[in-house]
Amino acid sequence: MRYKLTLEYDGTDLLGWQRQLDGPSAQEYLETAIACFTGVEKIYTDEQGNTHNPFTIFGKEPQISVQCAGRTDAGVHALCQVVHFDMDKEIDEFRMLQGLNHHLRSQDIAMSVLKVEKVTEDFNARFSAKGRGYIYKILNRRSFPALQKNRVWWVPYPLDIEAMRKGAQYLLGQHDFSSFRAAACQAKSPIKTLDRLDIVPNGEEIDFIVEAKSFLHHQVRNMVGTLKMVGNHQIEPEDVKKILDAKDRRKSGPNAPACGLYLSKVEY
Amino acid sequence: MRYKLTLEYDGTDLLGWQRQLDGPSAQEYLETAIACFTGVEKIYTDEQGNTHNPFTIFGKEPQISVQCAGRTDAGVHALCQVVHFDMDKEIDEFRMLQGLNHHLRSQDIAMSVLKVEKVTEDFNARFSAKGRGYIYKILNRRSFPALQKNRVWWVPYPLDIEAMRKGAQYLLGQHDFSSFRAAACQAKSPIKTLDRLDIVPNGEEIDFIVEAKSFLHHQVRNMVGTLKMVGNHQIEPEDVKKILDAKDRRKSGPNAPACGLYLSKVEY
Repeated sequence: MRYKLTLEYDGTDLLGWQRQLDGPSAQEYLETAIACFTGVEKIYTDEQGNTHNPFTIFGKEPQISVQCAGRTDAGVHALCQVVHFDMDKEIDEFRMLQGLNHHLRSQDIAMSVLKVEKVTEDFNARFSAKGRGYIYKILNRRSFPALQKNRVWWVPYPLDIEAMRKGAQYLLGQHDFSSFRAAACQAKSPIKTLDRLDIVPNGEEIDFIVEAKSFLHHQVRNMVGTLKMVGNHQIEPEDVKKILDAKDRRKSGPNAPACGLYLSKVEY
Repeated sequence: MRYKLTLEYDGTDLLGWQRQLDGPSAQEYLETAIACFTGVEKIYTDEQGNTHNPFTIFGKEPQISVQCAGRTDAGVHALCQVVHFDMDKEIDEFRMLQGLNHHLRSQDIAMSVLKVEKVTEDFNARFSAKGRGYIYKILNRRSFPALQKNRVWWVPYPLDIEAMRKGAQYLLGQHDFSSFRAAACQAKSPIKTLDRLDIVPNGEEIDFIVEAKSFLHHQVRNMVGTLKMVGNHQIEPEDVKKILDAKDRRKSGPNAPACGLYLSKVEY
């Protein structure tokens, strides 16, 4: 039986989505919660009085393996991450939601399962996805964030929204996004189609709403880092086109910090 | 010279606004930042190699004393707290804003100064206030909050907004609010006038927007705790009137958790 889960998580204390040897990852926390829920892993104290807690052991061999729609980097959040996994047993969706959340919450892990669905074997969280959406949040005010720490990129000087919108127009549509691609990117081609890049003022926040079938590694953060330079009048809106045409990562702006980025939508 | 400050803070790790002997308070952090900014306090290492840091010493004699518009309890947040204090020296507002935020931020304190204004001697942050506003946030969904931990009251079963709105109507206007008053409340009279109690759905959140000239201790949280019982159909909207008329704290609902409450407005 294949299950589809929709998740929310706070990326602040995570090394990212993917399982790592040296610290906590969203993938390992979720896989451990599933393993504890199904009983293949458990928390216990041995005869010597040592507590075995699989939630605090990183890089262990997974008992159950999940596949996600979009790997998030260290510090990046998810309002909506989608994963799938297989299990022999058929379990009621509501019971699984409550059970997984019980395990995550009792370990004080900042990850919550929003939805559990049974799906057919041809569903794949990664390969069936027809579209992905991210929100990038800038807090644009003089004073640093007290309540939104690790939730926004704090930019203390005013940004010109109209200029950023002009610059964003050059990125829409199908392009070679090599200039906005991380060196570590594993995608076969740098050609992607950007369907949406809206820049929406929201109180003291500026939200970048970005949608595409898929993205290159660091693409959203590199685009936001470049548009912020436009907003700050360090470069002109037209320079975004030059940077895109250069197909050279060294030409674009700095990678915007991870803490402002949220995986917000996966469409199937 | 009298200064008016507008502040934001995260109440999670605070014992509340008011200076305490046994731990951090918003008041002490702010007073210490002002004392460090003006040079009457400083961080230094003595000849024995011990570091003296006034930000980590609680309950000390204040060098500079501030008065706030509304004392917040432990765990309660402020989107907009207003304070005043006096200082011999005249300092440029922008320099003070930057200086205070430098000290708070370098100590990783979740408090940020949003605005500095010079005011006349007749301005008093507490007694000049003509109105105060609070927002109380409930996260109303099955799954616990991962990204809004300590920012909302998580209520996992559906709440009936229309029923809560009906119940809220009984609280508007001038009443004896003894049923919604904490035992520790120091107000002379339990009679207050509630000017606004709007219940606004906001995605998965339900926001209670509350305004009055002033409030009794725990009044907002006791009102929200009672209205949540209406929303959950534990009591009827009309029971809110009975509870109000009883003038007895034992009749009202539980005190809603501190983490959902935000001081959001002070009017002069």
